[in-house]
Amino acid sequence: MSDAAAKKFTLRNPDWESLVRDILDRQPIVKTLGIEIEELSPGRCTLAMDFRPELAQQHGFFQAGVVSILADNAGGMAAASLMPAGADILAVEFKINFIAPAKGSRMRARAEVVKAGRTLTISQITVSMQDGDREVDCALMQQTCMAVGG
Amino acid sequence: MSDAAAKKFTLRNPDWESLVRDILDRQPIVKTLGIEIEELSPGRCTLAMDFRPELAQQHGFFQAGVVSILADNAGGMAAASLMPAGADILAVEFKINFIAPAKGSRMRARAEVVKAGRTLTISQITVSMQDGDREVDCALMQQTCMAVGG
Amino acid sequence: MSDAAAKKFTLRNPDWESLVRDILDRQPIVKTLGIEIEELSPGRCTLAMDFRPELAQQHGFFQAGVVSILADNAGGMAAASLMPAGADILAVEFKINFIAPAKGSRMRARAEVVKAGRTLTISQITVSMQDGDREVDCALMQQTCMAVGG
Amino acid sequence: MSDAAAKKFTLRNPDWESLVRDILDRQPIVKTLGIEIEELSPGRCTLAMDFRPELAQQHGFFQAGVVSILADNAGGMAAASLMPAGADILAVEFKINFIAPAKGSRMRARAEVVKAGRTLTISQITVSMQDGDREVDCALMQQTCMAVGG
Repeated sequence: MSDAAAKKFTLRNPDWESLVRDILDRQPIVKTLGIEIEELSPGRCTLAMDFRPELAQQHGFFQAGVVSILADNAGGMAAASLMPAGADILAVEFKINFIAPAKGSRMRARAEVVKAGRTLTISQITVSMQDGDREVDCALMQQTCMAVGG
Repeated sequence: MSDAAAKKFTLRNPDWESLVRDILDRQPIVKTLGIEIEELSPGRCTLAMDFRPELAQQHGFFQAGVVSILADNAGGMAAASLMPAGADILAVEFKINFIAPAKGSRMRARAEVVKAGRTLTISQITVSMQDGDREVDCALMQQTCMAVGG
Repeated sequence: MSDAAAKKFTLRNPDWESLVRDILDRQPIVKTLGIEIEELSPGRCTLAMDFRPELAQQHGFFQAGVVSILADNAGGMAAASLMPAGADILAVEFKINFIAPAKGSRMRARAEVVKAGRTLTISQITVSMQDGDREVDCALMQQTCMAVGG
Repeated sequence: MSDAAAKKFTLRNPDWESLVRDILDRQPIVKTLGIEIEELSPGRCTLAMDFRPELAQQHGFFQAGVVSILADNAGGMAAASLMPAGADILAVEFKINFIAPAKGSRMRARAEVVKAGRTLTISQITVSMQDGDREVDCALMQQTCMAVGG
């Protein structure tokens, strides 16, 4: 856990990490796509997945919607980390700008909560592609999630 | 082709239908997900796909990002139908609101171009779920595409 | 009240019209800009304002943010019409696409609620400019509001 | 000019600063609202304006649309700083999340370009309110601008 993250957010659930991993584990699509957690701290989450040709669009890059799946999920997990015990998380809306082709061998979505409210949590997510030695940002998302239950 | 659509937009490519179907056919993810064209006319496109458990989130409904894939693709095809011959299409950005769980047996995304500019095309897309006899709207997208080449 | 609107939404406040007009009246900016209600029914609201040169951008058209003020307010009033008595309304987020210059003598924002939830209300708003005999759409907004209190 | 900004972006106009200040000066609304430049470097712009009661919503804070005006303009100026000589700038679309009431004596919008393309420029803008000694973030915008002419 970074000091910045620790200072910025109020933890409402001592078992936040179990809750996040459990929500992710219960999503069949996470297994289907091979999505993995690379980093996790309160209010922050990095998810990653390897490129697979069957998820490509017409130029052989990740299709825009696949980029959205990873980004949306990373934002949801960052938000879930700050929720009370027993809560579940719903995506309310998001907006994504595609700033470069999603070209490379591995995609990463780094999410950070910018506002954790009682009802709504707002996150910013940056998606990058690992392309050989270079890592290039390819998309930016602003997302709203809602806690339900808990 | 509906009269409304025919009147509203200027066709720049007599072979618009081949261009749209070709872009869709060249996307591996379209085959992977089983996405089908249900309706196609200049400036409009309805895509659909059946529910599959391996694409679900933790409640057994389509994950938000999967909803985005279908909506984004429908918007892209509606935009592509109005482009000049030889052009290709890129998603610039989109915003999506999730208004009901994506619960049901078949998902449909109905896209309509609202502005076809020289460079940018703006579309609105409504996503619905067929749940037994009922069809329920579950998401709304506003999308910007850019024509490249052509 | 249109039949469509009447059928679609559940009124939670018999005095919805007073509540909407009251929220609008209590906003100093509404008077400052000369914003007027042109139409009002449950789940729908059309607001309008005349062009004034001091609100223009560098080409003599309404500045993008001024377009947003009218659209955001129209969406907020459409949402407020479906809220319980005593509630107030907050804008959570919105997204707006500018599809033509906001050029003309009078701007109109037509808002329609697409989903009225317990906590969140989603609306779509179309902004147009009256330019002589023609009325031209210039912007599209998708907006989320939250009811507070009530 | 910060080193970071200098490294990140390619200047296409040695007179970028004149171009930005000129676009801002030619906007009547900038004078009407008392918008001032607080910081300006290639790819970055901070605009600010003092609170005025006539621009408030029903709770005495800046109305959401007024927040959008400042944020949209800051993003436009950050984008304009990286454009070729003689170009003008148009807002294509933006999305804004309101994360706290716009309460205080002075509003600031800090914009940073995240992608400067040939046609489109994407910026992120953070809006804050100075409230006594505290400065509190109240809104986040993701924006697309298009260069015209130049």
